[in-house]
Amino acid sequence: MEKLYFASDYQEGTHPEILKRLTETNLESTSGYGTDEYSEHARELVREACEAPNAQVQFLVGGTQVNAVMISAMLRSYEGVVSATTGHVGGHEAGAIEYTGHKVLTIPGVCGKIRAEDLEQYLTDSFADGNLDHMVHPGMVYISQPTEYGTLYSLAELEAIRGICDRFGIRLYLDGARLAYALACRENDVTLPDLARLTDAFYIGGTKCGCLFGEAVVIPDPALIPHFFTIVKQHGALLAKGRIAGLQFETLFAQREGGRLYDRVGEQALAAAERIRAALKEKGYRFAMENPTNQIFVVMDHAKLERFGAQVEYSFWEKAGENESVIRIATSWATADENVDKLIELL
Amino acid sequence: MEKLYFASDYQEGTHPEILKRLTETNLESTSGYGTDEYSEHARELVREACEAPNAQVQFLVGGTQVNAVMISAMLRSYEGVVSATTGHVGGHEAGAIEYTGHKVLTIPGVCGKIRAEDLEQYLTDSFADGNLDHMVHPGMVYISQPTEYGTLYSLAELEAIRGICDRFGIRLYLDGARLAYALACRENDVTLPDLARLTDAFYIGGTKCGCLFGEAVVIPDPALIPHFFTIVKQHGALLAKGRIAGLQFETLFAQREGGRLYDRVGEQALAAAERIRAALKEKGYRFAMENPTNQIFVVMDHAKLERFGAQVEYSFWEKAGENESVIRIATSWATADENVDKLIELL
Amino acid sequence: MEKLYFASDYQEGTHPEILKRLTETNLESTSGYGTDEYSEHARELVREACEAPNAQVQFLVGGTQVNAVMISAMLRSYEGVVSATTGHVGGHEAGAIEYTGHKVLTIPGVCGKIRAEDLEQYLTDSFADGNLDHMVHPGMVYISQPTEYGTLYSLAELEAIRGICDRFGIRLYLDGARLAYALACRENDVTLPDLARLTDAFYIGGTKCGCLFGEAVVIPDPALIPHFFTIVKQHGALLAKGRIAGLQFETLFAQREGGRLYDRVGEQALAAAERIRAALKEKGYRFAMENPTNQIFVVMDHAKLERFGAQVEYSFWEKAGENESVIRIATSWATADENVDKLIELL
Amino acid sequence: MEKLYFASDYQEGTHPEILKRLTETNLESTSGYGTDEYSEHARELVREACEAPNAQVQFLVGGTQVNAVMISAMLRSYEGVVSATTGHVGGHEAGAIEYTGHKVLTIPGVCGKIRAEDLEQYLTDSFADGNLDHMVHPGMVYISQPTEYGTLYSLAELEAIRGICDRFGIRLYLDGARLAYALACRENDVTLPDLARLTDAFYIGGTKCGCLFGEAVVIPDPALIPHFFTIVKQHGALLAKGRIAGLQFETLFAQREGGRLYDRVGEQALAAAERIRAALKEKGYRFAMENPTNQIFVVMDHAKLERFGAQVEYSFWEKAGENESVIRIATSWATADENVDKLIELL
Repeated sequence: MEKLYFASDYQEGTHPEILKRLTETNLESTSGYGTDEYSEHARELVREACEAPNAQVQFLVGGTQVNAVMISAMLRSYEGVVSATTGHVGGHEAGAIEYTGHKVLTIPGVCGKIRAEDLEQYLTDSFADGNLDHMVHPGMVYISQPTEYGTLYSLAELEAIRGICDRFGIRLYLDGARLAYALACRENDVTLPDLARLTDAFYIGGTKCGCLFGEAVVIPDPALIPHFFTIVKQHGALLAKGRIAGLQFETLFAQREGGRLYDRVGEQALAAAERIRAALKEKGYRFAMENPTNQIFVVMDHAKLERFGAQVEYSFWEKAGENESVIRIATSWATADENVDKLIELL
Repeated sequence: MEKLYFASDYQEGTHPEILKRLTETNLESTSGYGTDEYSEHARELVREACEAPNAQVQFLVGGTQVNAVMISAMLRSYEGVVSATTGHVGGHEAGAIEYTGHKVLTIPGVCGKIRAEDLEQYLTDSFADGNLDHMVHPGMVYISQPTEYGTLYSLAELEAIRGICDRFGIRLYLDGARLAYALACRENDVTLPDLARLTDAFYIGGTKCGCLFGEAVVIPDPALIPHFFTIVKQHGALLAKGRIAGLQFETLFAQREGGRLYDRVGEQALAAAERIRAALKEKGYRFAMENPTNQIFVVMDHAKLERFGAQVEYSFWEKAGENESVIRIATSWATADENVDKLIELL
Repeated sequence: MEKLYFASDYQEGTHPEILKRLTETNLESTSGYGTDEYSEHARELVREACEAPNAQVQFLVGGTQVNAVMISAMLRSYEGVVSATTGHVGGHEAGAIEYTGHKVLTIPGVCGKIRAEDLEQYLTDSFADGNLDHMVHPGMVYISQPTEYGTLYSLAELEAIRGICDRFGIRLYLDGARLAYALACRENDVTLPDLARLTDAFYIGGTKCGCLFGEAVVIPDPALIPHFFTIVKQHGALLAKGRIAGLQFETLFAQREGGRLYDRVGEQALAAAERIRAALKEKGYRFAMENPTNQIFVVMDHAKLERFGAQVEYSFWEKAGENESVIRIATSWATADENVDKLIELL
Repeated sequence: MEKLYFASDYQEGTHPEILKRLTETNLESTSGYGTDEYSEHARELVREACEAPNAQVQFLVGGTQVNAVMISAMLRSYEGVVSATTGHVGGHEAGAIEYTGHKVLTIPGVCGKIRAEDLEQYLTDSFADGNLDHMVHPGMVYISQPTEYGTLYSLAELEAIRGICDRFGIRLYLDGARLAYALACRENDVTLPDLARLTDAFYIGGTKCGCLFGEAVVIPDPALIPHFFTIVKQHGALLAKGRIAGLQFETLFAQREGGRLYDRVGEQALAAAERIRAALKEKGYRFAMENPTNQIFVVMDHAKLERFGAQVEYSFWEKAGENESVIRIATSWATADENVDKLIELL
């Protein structure tokens, strides 16, 4: 029997509708670097979805790349980026941020999230310090939605963080690598227009949400980063055949019956996750951390895990004592119903 | 009438055979970051094609990215890269090389090529100088095949450059963004195994040679760059769905009747270029520079150019006096015979 | 009445014997960049003091500069430096390390020191991790002697750390900004030859130990960092009139009756610190942290502190609850006996 | 007989008046990092000399350091600095500028100077280019006064360059490593207030003009570079005992009978240079380049040079054919009249 794949949300190619569009347009000739009409249309659709008519929208290739480009583009040389200790830029990007010359300033998070009061305390201490002159200045805050642990910021939480950033005159950036799985979540009350209103920049993840690759950076006020195009090129992040990225986001954000594909991608994954979560609960499994999105962090004892792992690809997360480990089960747009059935059977 | 597209070799999607493979495998689940079997097979095929069984092969996304990653990975902090003034890293990469902290040391080229004797003189002067301590040390040489002007290094020329690099203990790196159009050229006597034997690293271009995107970096002796994978990640150049790049190169380098697809891609483009070149000669056009590959640099007077431009997308290259300009006509794997016919008619 | 200065150990000019030498030689003409005879002699004296006859010795200007130059020179691009959370490179150098592209990887320290077992655990976890590919590689360990808190590594502790570095194949670097105050300490059992034997590089602090400015970098095996001179220049850290630094270290390390001046500088400061410490104990003050060197961390209530601060320049360290604060009292080669008397009176 | 030293203007210690001040104040205790009163007074004196009451004035250690700090502080990440090919930042700073991530964009100079019309043409081409997006943006102009070849910009030339910078919205920075030798020159019509009015930043050289070390950076409008202090620290360029630099510039710029010491330093060197130049002319020597400041570039045949070099330390500049070389003879504040006599005798 073939293994069931629940290890991550970037194991398959691309959503069939995207593949169809790539196929239909494959032999057309267009100009490069995103100056083609498909890319322009995709940018327009993203602006509409975000209700941000002036936004600069740029398609990049992957998440670490976007984070490095955006953080370095938004900071002055003497500034650093504040992140939760568990933030993706904190430890899992091979020093890509530091490579651009900037320090990641970490503060403890709760369930992957920065709490407004902790941020406020940290910034108060930093800016009050007579020694600010000798230290890295906090210049922006990095958060992600959902977080590394699949949790979500509520609108109220996001507004509180924005307020604190404003008070200290620093910027707010949101990493949306898995944004589809936040937007489609019943517990979520933060919309794309909210993100465009409350952040200085964010990106709408494609790689983990149905694309072959690609992330859509949104800069609501383009004056924030002049000559962003050149900055992208300077980072080796400019795609020659920009339309390939544009076509994918055009497909995800086109208006159609039944809603945008980007929403459907999220809904499919969450429906699958919900069924798995319910089954786990029913069977008495413990969750390492509760979250409402497409990543499930569950505790499994090692004997069980050995049998389970023979049939299912999962992600090892961390040890939990001598006899148990936390594993991650991830669903996506590509998770087939029958595979969910089989997984539940195996539990 | 629709315009004829001869502006560049990255205007279409991907070669139909590649698209077919992407489609066939689209819903398969594999591991990420190039650890899948397709990528592994593609690496093996590239190693075979290069007769470099120990080579490290890594698929990256685009040319500027590869150049920045490779140059910074091959240099020590106090070293710079020697390039012809017209080299792509010299002026057309938005400072991507300097962004990694390294100076591009330019020497005049002839028809886009570095001459061995010029390189020897430059290095002799640099290393003899009592002031080397106060200057950037030449640490490697950057060349491309074909060059920015479509010209080719002969095997003898390449060997001469290699010999000089050895004498001064510096590395040699070759940018093969359009390598298919060199390998398929009748005038070419430099093979992939030659490149693997004579350079410290080079890349086999995909973006301009039939892929959606992708370049295959070849490091014949992997000990040259330890932990290359992490370096790639640090530059934001690691593709999450690595297999998408792997599948493309697997298709290009698979053994099949009629030869590898990568060779066929080149042959098609060169056949088209040859027909256009012959027609231009016959009709008395002047070439700004002779070269045997897929880019044709031709002089056109402005009156003619206006009519021509109404029907053909070309690349403006540079002014040539008051009344004439140099334009570039580029062919590729996607250039249809009937479009070549139409172009010739228009000339 | 003039204030008493105990705020730091870099408040005065330079030791009178150094000033005398600068004056005697002032109008002599010598070559630049440390190629003069005084600098050469000073390097020779430092090599002798370290029993490191092959060491490369280079005089730089200040501590942050040395740390940035050395750490970036000793690391490969994908590596970071491991430091105690309280290490000077961790938070008090304005991001100078990150500016060179490297991450500071912090682990908790005890009294400012890294414990061998903590380091071992950290490195075991890091190098065992299947995700090392996606993370910054620990490439070296940064420690200081004395530490930020004035504590000392014992020879046994240092040897343990060296052993662990060897096991994991990483380098060890020691920041000796206040090294004179360690070497002269009765509790100290680590000599300069020990440092040359046990570290890959370290520096002998001058700025805080009697010089106008200047730090002597010692690289026991010069092959570790080829072309170090150019690296120094590249960082803007090369002194045109190199001899001014050379002369200072020549004076500090010249053999003379009563021992080297560098030793005497330390002894003077420690004698003063010992008297102050004894007085504080006698008068019932609490120490925030015990240490045997020239920095005294003492707790004072705010009422007392106000009176004290009117007459003494001290360093504020941190709050200790509502009514008390930790302050730092620092002695140096320049601390006059009568000022110690006056300080004790005031306590 | 001892050799005569005419190799450079940084061969001796410091002007005796500066040494006197350092000696007088040596044992005083002051706060660090340039927050002391001497530094504050020196800053005030420099502001007055420049008629720039709001200017930020900061003392750094050396020229390469200042250039790297200032250029990186004044540029956005995607911008480069325009310099004459012969500019000091072009080739003689070991890549210190590129290390900060910025490209040096060179244009040919005439006698070391950038001509306004060449700059205008270069910027017109750069900004007109449809490809600016793919290239480094010119963000500032680097010039020096005197230039590498000892020549001077006239006020009219400087105003023309400023005008062009304004037209293109880029900044102007002037390297004044040897500024004393420009200001004191009879042919000079550019004053310190002119520099403060016409540049966005410049520095007044100390190292080559009488200091032990030290350069005074002047930023007429401090809003140009927020948090400059932290930037200086981040570059490892902040002097712990800042007052040592402050005291030197206080001495150079204090008002006194007979004019400021900084002026006298220049006058002394130029008087010596004038005598040597006259003698050279009289004896029929050819100058490689005419200039009115303290560096004399003279052609000497190799037979003569061998005898000359046995008695005089000079700087070799470059070969001039088979039998001759260009050498540099430099005078300074420290050039004794009797050594000029001896030199003239030897010619």
